[in-house]
Amino acid sequence: MANKKIAVLVGSLRKDSFNRKIAEAVQSLASANLELEFLEIGNLVYYNEDLDHGNPPQEWTAFRTKIKEADGVLFFTPEYNRGTTAVLKNAIDVASRPYGQNSLAGKPGAVVSVSISALGGFGANHHLRQSMVFVDVLMMQQPEAYIGNAQSLFDDQGNVVEDTKQFLKTFIDAYEQWVNKF
Amino acid sequence: MANKKIAVLVGSLRKDSFNRKIAEAVQSLASANLELEFLEIGNLVYYNEDLDHGNPPQEWTAFRTKIKEADGVLFFTPEYNRGTTAVLKNAIDVASRPYGQNSLAGKPGAVVSVSISALGGFGANHHLRQSMVFVDVLMMQQPEAYIGNAQSLFDDQGNVVEDTKQFLKTFIDAYEQWVNKF
Amino acid sequence: MANKKIAVLVGSLRKDSFNRKIAEAVQSLASANLELEFLEIGNLVYYNEDLDHGNPPQEWTAFRTKIKEADGVLFFTPEYNRGTTAVLKNAIDVASRPYGQNSLAGKPGAVVSVSISALGGFGANHHLRQSMVFVDVLMMQQPEAYIGNAQSLFDDQGNVVEDTKQFLKTFIDAYEQWVNKF
Amino acid sequence: MANKKIAVLVGSLRKDSFNRKIAEAVQSLASANLELEFLEIGNLVYYNEDLDHGNPPQEWTAFRTKIKEADGVLFFTPEYNRGTTAVLKNAIDVASRPYGQNSLAGKPGAVVSVSISALGGFGANHHLRQSMVFVDVLMMQQPEAYIGNAQSLFDDQGNVVEDTKQFLKTFIDAYEQWVNKF
Repeated sequence: MANKKIAVLVGSLRKDSFNRKIAEAVQSLASANLELEFLEIGNLVYYNEDLDHGNPPQEWTAFRTKIKEADGVLFFTPEYNRGTTAVLKNAIDVASRPYGQNSLAGKPGAVVSVSISALGGFGANHHLRQSMVFVDVLMMQQPEAYIGNAQSLFDDQGNVVEDTKQFLKTFIDAYEQWVNKF
Repeated sequence: MANKKIAVLVGSLRKDSFNRKIAEAVQSLASANLELEFLEIGNLVYYNEDLDHGNPPQEWTAFRTKIKEADGVLFFTPEYNRGTTAVLKNAIDVASRPYGQNSLAGKPGAVVSVSISALGGFGANHHLRQSMVFVDVLMMQQPEAYIGNAQSLFDDQGNVVEDTKQFLKTFIDAYEQWVNKF
Repeated sequence: MANKKIAVLVGSLRKDSFNRKIAEAVQSLASANLELEFLEIGNLVYYNEDLDHGNPPQEWTAFRTKIKEADGVLFFTPEYNRGTTAVLKNAIDVASRPYGQNSLAGKPGAVVSVSISALGGFGANHHLRQSMVFVDVLMMQQPEAYIGNAQSLFDDQGNVVEDTKQFLKTFIDAYEQWVNKF
Repeated sequence: MANKKIAVLVGSLRKDSFNRKIAEAVQSLASANLELEFLEIGNLVYYNEDLDHGNPPQEWTAFRTKIKEADGVLFFTPEYNRGTTAVLKNAIDVASRPYGQNSLAGKPGAVVSVSISALGGFGANHHLRQSMVFVDVLMMQQPEAYIGNAQSLFDDQGNVVEDTKQFLKTFIDAYEQWVNKF
């Protein structure tokens, strides 16, 4: 099986983001067949169709190219106010445009929501999934990944605790199989 | 009945935004008892909790003050990829923080979704409503406002056509009654 | 303050339903100003508009009358497959019809979701809230009530444990204030 | 390509259901490689876990067997109160149980929402999609199928008008390709 390049989008800008830490744990657990690449999204200005007439921001163009080159997309989302975050939603919106040039179309995707609440970011997870229908990202359904009580999932060395580690391993292996279906 | 100040948030940055035009039509149709004030949201940087430790961006602080002073909040949202827009979600997230200082809490709210699709921005409308639960904005339920086929709702002078005008009048009058309940 | 009659709808038919137990705990914690009445919904046949032409089922008519007489509606919902249950959705649909005779319109409502998962029935809770927009039930936003790990919330005598009891008391008192606003 | 058996579930019990008519049009447009079989769901009693201990209703067992034998599942849903219908939600819940014996798991699925409103049953469509995540039905994302203004889509002979016919053909052909991926 040839290596697959997976674009990773993390919806938090916090320096000590739990989402980023979980994403890094997933990266370290992925098999050698998956190359997870973290894409910068905090530098993308708010989507505005006017900017796509003429010369779109260079950060948009570079980001779209990265998405186009990827074989799949993996999202890590915090939950802000029962929804996903602006920075992540914006990245999706930028990637899907301009009209007729949706870079995400047809790519296999998956989502992990991470929150400090016990609810595991359910609201963010499913809001993101609803957007994936329109942009035609083919979403892995199971296992769903709702990582709650995030602050309690790391040991003193900052490593993910065993139970969570095993779950994340199951998750990323299932995703690898999903990617290989397409 | 004393005048009520209503903060208006428009989720599109396009110069010729249909959402803004519909919002302006609503403003012109509101009774003298409602003062609709459009708040700038395109200047708010992405929410990042780290920035709230120390000196938050001055634009955040000014925006939060405006929201606190308002007697109600009115949202106009486009639909991007079956959800609301990043710029609008970000404004909500900024207004609701820092932790324990949610400026939106308890305010009567309503939402209008405007899109060029026949579907009227249903997905954006209800994603926004889900966030309103958490931030405790008391949402008017009826009439729901899904404004579809937006490009066909203006005459040659740029005025909203009669049917839509009547609907928007019904909507804003119902909202005035809703605001006065609290 | 005059007594308020609150219709209680429980979305589980299991004999040992956790939803019913939590609903009964809420009933016992409500102040003397709220009369919570549990309505039977398992006897309502699936909504079918054809049955409303002519003589609708007597159970439908009786149920609609009960809803009309109530000053508010309180929902307790399990989560089945990330949504609310058929029996509860059907009760809502029956109550909202026939066309033009929505018995629920304008009533103050609230929802508690109860599940054995840690996720607390978030999906069911918000699916129900989306329906409430259309039927114009005025929903209390805060406190939200997601009761997870339900099997661990009862002591040996079958009583709700202290933490949960306090939360449910807070919830029903907030609902009483919400009802009294209208 | 071997023939694929597709279970069709229609969420309306009305004799003149638009959903059923659209489903029949889709059936007639499907290629010879897809066998669409309409399953009865109005005879399934409300899901209640107690009934699965011992002898479950014979209608449940027969229905679960039919689902297990299918190579895919196609849903047609009306929108009642911004959600899907009880009869359809119940069929999904019955099919997914008893615990550990989800008949739907891993099957390729798709959904068409049909309503007389211009909004095309968006709310029902996406509520159903949320349930599909949990039951692991692999959903086709594009083309989405929101059939609005249903009463205007049939000619005097009761045939679907040309535009809609072409869309439904596109839809079912895309679904055939989707099914063949798994």
